[in-house]
Amino acid sequence: MRFEPEAKIIENRIIQVDNFLNHQLDITLFNEIGKEFKRRFSNKEVTKIVTIETSGIAIASITAQYFNNVPVVFAKKHAGINMNLDVYEATVYSYTKDKDYTIKISKDFLSPTDKVLIIDDFLASGNALMGLVSLLSQSNAEISGAGIVIEKSFQEGRKRIQEKGIQLESLAIIDSIRDGQVIFK
Amino acid sequence: MRFEPEAKIIENRIIQVDNFLNHQLDITLFNEIGKEFKRRFSNKEVTKIVTIETSGIAIASITAQYFNNVPVVFAKKHAGINMNLDVYEATVYSYTKDKDYTIKISKDFLSPTDKVLIIDDFLASGNALMGLVSLLSQSNAEISGAGIVIEKSFQEGRKRIQEKGIQLESLAIIDSIRDGQVIFK
Repeated sequence: MRFEPEAKIIENRIIQVDNFLNHQLDITLFNEIGKEFKRRFSNKEVTKIVTIETSGIAIASITAQYFNNVPVVFAKKHAGINMNLDVYEATVYSYTKDKDYTIKISKDFLSPTDKVLIIDDFLASGNALMGLVSLLSQSNAEISGAGIVIEKSFQEGRKRIQEKGIQLESLAIIDSIRDGQVIFK
Repeated sequence: MRFEPEAKIIENRIIQVDNFLNHQLDITLFNEIGKEFKRRFSNKEVTKIVTIETSGIAIASITAQYFNNVPVVFAKKHAGINMNLDVYEATVYSYTKDKDYTIKISKDFLSPTDKVLIIDDFLASGNALMGLVSLLSQSNAEISGAGIVIEKSFQEGRKRIQEKGIQLESLAIIDSIRDGQVIFK
């Protein structure tokens, strides 16, 4: 897939993909992404897709169409006053914002009979993904796998997920960022 | 469409639709919604769909598939540090949270040649929608229409949008909330 030409590099560190993934959304590309996740997880049973707000939601929703329209549940970072108070929650440290935030999923929407595919846009340190894994463990749902659009392989996220025995599939793997250029594996 | 059986009423005022629209997402239903928006706006040219984070994103993304996969752009409420600083912005007052927030769209993603369909989950006071209309007006994009999933017709949103000459289509129109029951039109 053609991520490379459109990604901008900020401070030799942050990959900005606002033009197709995080602000403007390329729906044709998202369908390609969904199809590819289906191919990679064709061996797994999936009854639900779980993601995290905000950037994971559109990718997860389009991807769900390739998994028999299973429901999507997104973990909330900014829970409103009308959210159910009976939730699974986890604390996640954000490097980009240098602070902790809490993610929540209502207990109504996860159960031990669920087989969950986790979908997210980025994997770097793995903090957000480990937060989702914690929510799913609390619910005793089974984790069928984790599908990521862009992985920064020079951070420790992959190792942390694989240590949990979770099948991890990333569609674009970035080896390094050098002189404002993304080097793909 | 079958919104009624699943909506919960909180304090005779707030309609909680977390089980299919705002937390868990019913992808089959969203496809029905997308098809219906296409039917209602079949007379209009649409080059882009604009919505607002968080709850509008999945509906807008599925709906875009019925409009030739046009790009979706969502206005950000929680802009990260890596967002482009050159933005259109508007201040929106939230009744549910009783405070102002700022919505932003990067100038990169709206242009005077765009013909924009606005999609959102709820219309009540119309504050969020008027904020989006303001962003679009700043960009000189043309507004093709506004598609809403659930409208509370007893608030003033419809009047404010129609005064702008915008075609407004709501799929479920709530007449009133009485004794914890939603009364549909």
